Amino acid sequence: MPAPPPGFLDACRSAIGAPHVLTDAVDLAAVLTDWRGRYTGTALALLRPGSTAEVAALVALCQDFRVPIVPQGGNTGLVLGSVPDRSGTAVVLALTRLNRIRQVDTGNNTMTVEAGCILQTIQEAAAQAGRLFPLSLAAEGSCTIGGNLSTNAGGTGVLRYGTTRALCLGLEVVTADGKIWSGLRGLRKDNTGYDLRDLYIGAEGTLGIITAAVIKVFAQPAAELTALVALQSPGQALQLLTLAQARCGDALTGFELMSALCLQLVAKHFPQLRNPLAAAPQVVLLQLSDSESETHATALLESVMAQAMEAGIIDDAAVATSIAQSRHMWALREHISLAQAAEGKNIKHDIALPISAIESFIAGTDALLAAAFPGCRMVTFGHLGDGNLHYNVSAPVGCADAAFLERQEQVNRVVHD
Amino acid sequence: MPAPPPGFLDACRSAIGAPHVLTDAVDLAAVLTDWRGRYTGTALALLRPGSTAEVAALVALCQDFRVPIVPQGGNTGLVLGSVPDRSGTAVVLALTRLNRIRQVDTGNNTMTVEAGCILQTIQEAAAQAGRLFPLSLAAEGSCTIGGNLSTNAGGTGVLRYGTTRALCLGLEVVTADGKIWSGLRGLRKDNTGYDLRDLYIGAEGTLGIITAAVIKVFAQPAAELTALVALQSPGQALQLLTLAQARCGDALTGFELMSALCLQLVAKHFPQLRNPLAAAPQVVLLQLSDSESETHATALLESVMAQAMEAGIIDDAAVATSIAQSRHMWALREHISLAQAAEGKNIKHDIALPISAIESFIAGTDALLAAAFPGCRMVTFGHLGDGNLHYNVSAPVGCADAAFLERQEQVNRVVHD
Repeated sequence: MPAPPPGFLDACRSAIGAPHVLTDAVDLAAVLTDWRGRYTGTALALLRPGSTAEVAALVALCQDFRVPIVPQGGNTGLVLGSVPDRSGTAVVLALTRLNRIRQVDTGNNTMTVEAGCILQTIQEAAAQAGRLFPLSLAAEGSCTIGGNLSTNAGGTGVLRYGTTRALCLGLEVVTADGKIWSGLRGLRKDNTGYDLRDLYIGAEGTLGIITAAVIKVFAQPAAELTALVALQSPGQALQLLTLAQARCGDALTGFELMSALCLQLVAKHFPQLRNPLAAAPQVVLLQLSDSESETHATALLESVMAQAMEAGIIDDAAVATSIAQSRHMWALREHISLAQAAEGKNIKHDIALPISAIESFIAGTDALLAAAFPGCRMVTFGHLGDGNLHYNVSAPVGCADAAFLERQEQVNRVVHD
Repeated sequence: MPAPPPGFLDACRSAIGAPHVLTDAVDLAAVLTDWRGRYTGTALALLRPGSTAEVAALVALCQDFRVPIVPQGGNTGLVLGSVPDRSGTAVVLALTRLNRIRQVDTGNNTMTVEAGCILQTIQEAAAQAGRLFPLSLAAEGSCTIGGNLSTNAGGTGVLRYGTTRALCLGLEVVTADGKIWSGLRGLRKDNTGYDLRDLYIGAEGTLGIITAAVIKVFAQPAAELTALVALQSPGQALQLLTLAQARCGDALTGFELMSALCLQLVAKHFPQLRNPLAAAPQVVLLQLSDSESETHATALLESVMAQAMEAGIIDDAAVATSIAQSRHMWALREHISLAQAAEGKNIKHDIALPISAIESFIAGTDALLAAAFPGCRMVTFGHLGDGNLHYNVSAPVGCADAAFLERQEQVNRVVHD
């Protein structure tokens, strides 16, 4: 591993205090390895600034000493965006000490939060103020809002609330030359100059380091209701989506599609998670967030289900009658990836499509893959409401993992073409 | 006026056809004067390309010949962004012939439209497909979607649907060097590369010329219901907003605040527009867009009004019982600017504020202005729900327009400070 440029680490220690410039292997271990444990990089040091000014000072130093920077939040990313490579020339700049909630403004329905705030902490602070921060994803207990913004994270609420980009009104950023760009405005309508905010969002830290953000919060729903629905095809799921949006408007906050094989694998590996529906080619998990009451939500959902049944769109439906049942339905959805991993290696694709193109994509790609790789099993699920499909291919039964993964390149070509 | 660079106009004629390169004063008159008639510029020519490729060819020519370009849509702007200056060196590049609706995708809830499409034409095409395109503003009969995007227009639906930026999923742009940038994706979740789309939106044509867009459409509401509410202060209006959002969620699609003087001026100059409420210090116009039924909307709105009355937030409320009554209530709001103009000159400010800061802004600024300019009358109204306040100052009764306007600079300083 190369030595740091002479004087660099001392300059960092002067800037943010020696206790926050860490070089011991034991201190660095957690920040050098990715969440899935597939890759471990190396770094000159872990820098833990405690304020925006300290981030700016470090970026300026790294610029002077020509040291690459890898910004890091909760290090929960799955695509190696948050760990350094093995050159050993970079520093990891952790935002985790910037974790203050600077302001909760219930009148403006906004919060001002620092980049290192844990997503779940923000959700809880919003709830304490009687508001909803709707960004929700599996890693919420450890991911940070800075990482959510830098990757424009999606999650389960995109159908109604959009991606993280749509939840952000303003940013504070340390630019690549170590200056602080202050755009912490809480305006709903902000037409001052070019929209640099959206350029930093989703840029994965390559244009600057996000240090704080003004985020939107919403009125808390009076009731949330979940249903599982059995139907025959992705095309029928799309018909149900159109019907439910027409009947429920924005109260429809979740719409997840799962193919039969998804639920078969969950049943095999997690038998304690009971599926209230009989086996069906496709299952939709549907969530209603009602601003009035549980009674109103139940009546509306049952009426939509009855209409869909009469129209021949769906075969069966189970509406949760308690929060526990509702969580149980979501658990089926959330265990698909784990069940597929337990079944053996698989080749994952996380694809964004126009919603109207999903049916023909699944049918066409299934047929091509079945012809090219007989016996392979398509585990297809996703956020149908926002056109985000997880199209994962599992090995044929009895096929060795290694032999299957050798063909990954060919499978990917079929799917992405 | 300077002569065009030798060969330039002939090259334009070759690129898009001679009938679309106009240089006669009579042809140029309409595109050289701004909508309010305050300013008339000059130009070498009016260029009317008929396709994206022709726009690209013209931009490349203007680059070669060093001719400045003023892109123009419906020329309905109020701030001189769409007319050329008086140097006579520029061309006006009108997008009005790019007026095709390329696609309506009801499954994906998107439309692909060219920049020159009139906003109202888009609204009507969406309605014909059973969908709602919610962007709505006074100029909708003649403004174009390209102009709406380039200025990130707001309008009356921002509270629920956001500004034009939030309604756009993808763009096609001719860049400053005459290349076509194709970003016409209809994806709800699009994390491919940097977000250039949002950089072009709101850039007023300075970074490139928007030629087409993929825009979002929504389920049409089953019922729309309007109410006028009398209350004492902007602070109470904010309390009502919080209550209505908690009770109605996203069904609350409009929330407009008007001060007593606004409605007094409307009553004076448009006596045929009857206000169903007795005089009150502040009036809120509230709109509910319900996905269920008119019965449901009425019951919900009446219940919210009753709760607000019991809580002492509001003094009185009138709920429209017909579409005609509803239009009538909106007409009161829409005639404020006209009434103020009929009353004499005034000094306009269009201000974006955090919603929670509006009450103290109005109180503080009113007091400062009253002290500095005795007798001046504050005509305050706006989209309270999105923090956009029209803070207009009319001359004291009996004060000459010219004498009042001389003090514009001083009034602006007080307001903007």
